[in-house]
Amino acid sequence: MNAPDPRLSINQATLKYADLATALRVTADAGVQAIGLWREPVHEVGLATAAKLLTDSGLRFTTHCRGGFFTLPEGPGRRAAIDDNRVAIEEAATLAAAGAEGSTAILVLVAGGLPEGSRDLIGVRERVRDAIGELAPDAAAAGVTLAIEPLHPMYASDRAVVSTLGQALDIAADFDPSVVGATVDTFHIWWDPDVLHQIARAGREGRIATYQVCDWKTPLPADVLLGRHYPGDGVIDFASLTGAVLDAGYRGDIEVEIFNEQIWADAPQHVVQRTVETFGSAISPLLGAPVDSAS
Amino acid sequence: MNAPDPRLSINQATLKYADLATALRVTADAGVQAIGLWREPVHEVGLATAAKLLTDSGLRFTTHCRGGFFTLPEGPGRRAAIDDNRVAIEEAATLAAAGAEGSTAILVLVAGGLPEGSRDLIGVRERVRDAIGELAPDAAAAGVTLAIEPLHPMYASDRAVVSTLGQALDIAADFDPSVVGATVDTFHIWWDPDVLHQIARAGREGRIATYQVCDWKTPLPADVLLGRHYPGDGVIDFASLTGAVLDAGYRGDIEVEIFNEQIWADAPQHVVQRTVETFGSAISPLLGAPVDSAS
Repeated sequence: MNAPDPRLSINQATLKYADLATALRVTADAGVQAIGLWREPVHEVGLATAAKLLTDSGLRFTTHCRGGFFTLPEGPGRRAAIDDNRVAIEEAATLAAAGAEGSTAILVLVAGGLPEGSRDLIGVRERVRDAIGELAPDAAAAGVTLAIEPLHPMYASDRAVVSTLGQALDIAADFDPSVVGATVDTFHIWWDPDVLHQIARAGREGRIATYQVCDWKTPLPADVLLGRHYPGDGVIDFASLTGAVLDAGYRGDIEVEIFNEQIWADAPQHVVQRTVETFGSAISPLLGAPVDSAS
Repeated sequence: MNAPDPRLSINQATLKYADLATALRVTADAGVQAIGLWREPVHEVGLATAAKLLTDSGLRFTTHCRGGFFTLPEGPGRRAAIDDNRVAIEEAATLAAAGAEGSTAILVLVAGGLPEGSRDLIGVRERVRDAIGELAPDAAAAGVTLAIEPLHPMYASDRAVVSTLGQALDIAADFDPSVVGATVDTFHIWWDPDVLHQIARAGREGRIATYQVCDWKTPLPADVLLGRHYPGDGVIDFASLTGAVLDAGYRGDIEVEIFNEQIWADAPQHVVQRTVETFGSAISPLLGAPVDSAS
């Protein structure tokens, strides 16, 4: 097996049933250099312990997953969601400081769906903009970039009312690019007839906070959340998407984030190994020679 | 129960397990004035018999479902698909002539998905444009409008590479609006942040060939094809979408097309009755007074 691509980052969701210590260990043991973490396993050990484990792992920290879920109307529920996002911003800053050199302080935002009983998609989408407006000063103060993630339109009602990269960029446009950007995840946007144009726009506007790859394949599983696959195992044209992301100037780490019951049932060491292999065959050849700013 | 809305048309897919004679009978018996047909049940009895049954029913004919599925590369498979679409065009013309006054000769086009082994979404989408270019002269000669149907992006890989109304309109733009238009189906486009703008554009460009309504609800069923519901039973904001369609100048019949195993298992008379009721409560109040061009 070749050495893992230096730009590969394992998103912890890919190792759902591993605790934080295990996820860090199997990732580092495989020679992978970076990891994106999820809040729940961080909370299990506490932020201070998580930060220490991360430092000890020697891994770069790439994203914190995830904030958002702020589509409720004004009231205690919305206040609780905003406050929780403020905590997540602080976590992202702490973890980025604890990670190895080259770590990035990015909080991925999944907007949330229509509240129970609501059909007001347009109004709910405006609430997302308002929530980000509330959080932007906190993110700026903490040096954290909020990365709005458009989710596939099949999740528009129950998970994320932000459905396209263009829509995410329209929301981000009100804010400084260092504070509000977008998450570009192939699974969610590959189908979009406007996607290459929007990736180029995201680059021009300085908004590509993180690039995540996994594959799409049908038939979808009974739970459509769990239909993600290793890069190359499905139908996504990574060449055009990755080429557009590179052309847009993105030079950061690239996460693999997979939700898939079969993959989750596998041993985490083996999942990391398969991720290294599939990234190496499906993504690395598209990346060209590493960019060395000193050369 | 009030009289059915005069603009309501029952799409035959809503009565999937009824044969043509039954579908026509239960629709007419309920006082509904119009029906959209599917090719398979028409073929079961033969076109001539189907046309006679339709005439005898006294119903308007609103659409023929469906052509398309022409995403294969050049070769015998593609030629067969194009030829089959030519047959479907002739069927649509025959049935429109057999229906009551006010019938419309519309062939709904579902593009088809990525061919086995292909990841070339961009190239496959161009094949759709090419196929419509081949068929447009036949449609024009037959007086049939080809109604490109954008399907929800969750079907982009296996069913329809046309995923948004904007994309359908971009394809249609090469052709005369009387020959190539779009199918506006709430289930497929409700999530689109650009949908109201694109409906308005479709109106300006004279492209709204047919308007179909049904509802979206989560969780999706295991087979995501079958997650459609009676209008009002889900989360779609019919007020904004229907308002936009009316503002765009659409004055035609409105089909209810539902794919749903529970609804299909119900008696067709009852399904028509529920469709009349839900259309009456969720859609009719949005339609305002009937437009009478003589007044």
